[in-house]
Amino acid sequence: MGLVVQKYGGSSVADAEGIKRVAKRIVDAKKAGHQVVVVVSAMGDTTDELIDLAEQVSPIPAGREFDMLLTAGERISMALLAMAIKNLGHKAQSFTGSQAGVITDSVHNKARIIDVTPGRIRTALDEGNIAIVAGFQGVSQDKKDITTLGRGGSDTTAVALAAALDAEVCEIYTDVDGVFTADPRVVKKARKIDWINFEDMLELASSGSKVLLHRCVEYARRYNIPIHVRSSFSGLQGTWVSNEPQGDQKVEQAIISGVAHDTSEAKITVVGVPDKPGEAAVIFRLIADAEINIDMVVQNVSAASTGLTDISFTLPKAEGHKATEALEKAKAAIGFESLRYDDQIAKISLVGAGMKTNPGVTAAFFEALSDAGVNIELISTSEIRISVVTRADDVNEAVCAVHTAFGLDSDSDEAVVYGGTGR
Amino acid sequence: MGLVVQKYGGSSVADAEGIKRVAKRIVDAKKAGHQVVVVVSAMGDTTDELIDLAEQVSPIPAGREFDMLLTAGERISMALLAMAIKNLGHKAQSFTGSQAGVITDSVHNKARIIDVTPGRIRTALDEGNIAIVAGFQGVSQDKKDITTLGRGGSDTTAVALAAALDAEVCEIYTDVDGVFTADPRVVKKARKIDWINFEDMLELASSGSKVLLHRCVEYARRYNIPIHVRSSFSGLQGTWVSNEPQGDQKVEQAIISGVAHDTSEAKITVVGVPDKPGEAAVIFRLIADAEINIDMVVQNVSAASTGLTDISFTLPKAEGHKATEALEKAKAAIGFESLRYDDQIAKISLVGAGMKTNPGVTAAFFEALSDAGVNIELISTSEIRISVVTRADDVNEAVCAVHTAFGLDSDSDEAVVYGGTGR
Repeated sequence: MGLVVQKYGGSSVADAEGIKRVAKRIVDAKKAGHQVVVVVSAMGDTTDELIDLAEQVSPIPAGREFDMLLTAGERISMALLAMAIKNLGHKAQSFTGSQAGVITDSVHNKARIIDVTPGRIRTALDEGNIAIVAGFQGVSQDKKDITTLGRGGSDTTAVALAAALDAEVCEIYTDVDGVFTADPRVVKKARKIDWINFEDMLELASSGSKVLLHRCVEYARRYNIPIHVRSSFSGLQGTWVSNEPQGDQKVEQAIISGVAHDTSEAKITVVGVPDKPGEAAVIFRLIADAEINIDMVVQNVSAASTGLTDISFTLPKAEGHKATEALEKAKAAIGFESLRYDDQIAKISLVGAGMKTNPGVTAAFFEALSDAGVNIELISTSEIRISVVTRADDVNEAVCAVHTAFGLDSDSDEAVVYGGTGR
Repeated sequence: MGLVVQKYGGSSVADAEGIKRVAKRIVDAKKAGHQVVVVVSAMGDTTDELIDLAEQVSPIPAGREFDMLLTAGERISMALLAMAIKNLGHKAQSFTGSQAGVITDSVHNKARIIDVTPGRIRTALDEGNIAIVAGFQGVSQDKKDITTLGRGGSDTTAVALAAALDAEVCEIYTDVDGVFTADPRVVKKARKIDWINFEDMLELASSGSKVLLHRCVEYARRYNIPIHVRSSFSGLQGTWVSNEPQGDQKVEQAIISGVAHDTSEAKITVVGVPDKPGEAAVIFRLIADAEINIDMVVQNVSAASTGLTDISFTLPKAEGHKATEALEKAKAAIGFESLRYDDQIAKISLVGAGMKTNPGVTAAFFEALSDAGVNIELISTSEIRISVVTRADDVNEAVCAVHTAFGLDSDSDEAVVYGGTGR
């Protein structure tokens, strides 16, 4: 029996009852003979309440102080969890990100982990303790200031600790049963995936699946740490994410892992761009300088008669204003005709390593959408993913149609509660 | 203009409005040319809410984890305060007790400060920052664990930092105007004291005055740090506590500084103790071994006929059960007849360095009580204090009578709001 890292999200420790339930689950793992390291998020709405307070005090929360503020949330949940475990007769100690050796860069509010030096965790484990570690937080290498890791940070903390401690598995406990073949709120017949490889999981995460975030999966892949996503409310097996299926996970690898969708993006089309070398580079340098992350990029073939082309790209809706402003300012310099901004779009993605060797997938995907009467506006593909942009209104119908077309529908009609985790 | 340490209690930063008001006051001190270090407590009821949560999770909160939990409170208030100051256009950085170099022993929940190494505070000040420090907390020297200083801990943090930074003054901001000649809730004509020396303040603090706690005053006396207790709600001068009156504080030192009272104690009388050497020692060794702090001790002259004596002592009501239990167990060994436990008592103390050279003080004190019809049960004196124990029901009448008799009554009838601070 080796070392296990378990991560519990805010919804699993939302109140005293939740904390006691989680404590019991942790103790069960300890009793089963594991060394147990637990990463915990802030309780329920704590983080939102702290953000509210900050907004009442100052309209521009400062980076360093904002991190100091938010990290109070995990401090509360981890101390309570350690107390609850002690109350069950087991030894437990809680550790801040800094005490756990989570070393980051100095970019407040979205720091990156540089190194993990879990000396105190090792000692605590060797002394028979269950170690409880604050998720989402670290300490900056140069200034020794408290930092936070941004969205999904607690999952990343868990995977990073699992890597540094050479854990057998990193268990991510959440309020859903695992990763599904589609969002069960949209597709009633979505199935829980028993095992999925890192590559497919990465594509699902970057295509709108919210159970695991991209950076956490990326970290796990780099250090080859198996992730087990499962519910803290049920005792069921969840979804294993790893390089190879292990033990009884010998599942037949399907062609398609799942269908993801994302309605958080908008589309900008730069109309009438002179079709000459370097124009696209100018546009995307401008966007990059404004620190805007773009997703899909599509350039149509230019009409020979005009020598002009259109360039479309998608980006988070929240960045829409900043991007159009930057482009409008450079309109004369770039020489385009006009901008079109559209935030009523959805992105639908089909993900699966199997599509590399199955030439019919793209055609079947488009046929399914066509049969459902869904119009395709943009197309973008990778080796193991096809994404299209459609009208936002069409998204549910489109996802269901594709899910059925690729044989992903489950036989049962069980309703599944499916919610995102905060961080 | 030198360095000023300001401490704000939980009631001063109870909500966003309070934090903004305090931020403005801090900025005023900075604008006046001071280097400013601020020590802040947790917001309003935060600590009580955290304690409630802990009790829901475990009936026996563990020391180390309880400290981890409670210290989240100051983390929130200090970060918000730093944000509010930045919003006023000034530089501010917040520091945990650990970051501020507050080194303590390892006694969780009531740690003692061993050393203060405020290197990061110095650097922050030199860079033009206002430094905000979490009160009430430190880090243990040996294990590097988070500790808390117990009741009144934030005041102690402030004085300790003032000493380590060689501050001009330690300003303790609270929700009252200063130290009064008596509790204004009891004595309507109580006067604010403009200046008081450390010794008298120490006696007042240990006799029931709640504005400053004994350990904080003791620390200030040891390092000769003037304390200025004042209201965070008004701009008024409060009470200066120091060795010598400074500048315009040339007040005529009165014989009596004030009248304190305390209804938090109970009285135990050990009846029929054999009057032979060593008996008292056995009793109080027993009490000390049970880690009970006792206050007044009185032994009556033994009746010659029986060779037995009675020994009475006072102690915090909360320790009453533990003490009687320990004594009952040793009844046969000590050979006393019975125990009497009485928690309906009050202690009334008259404090003033002037009484050393004024022989009539004791007589006048007893006369005042006698005129008010108040019966005296125990008497105990020091060089600058006389304390008596009376019935709890008599306390208000007794305090008012003594206050009037010693000419302490103010001419004005202003009502003063007088409340304790949490820590």
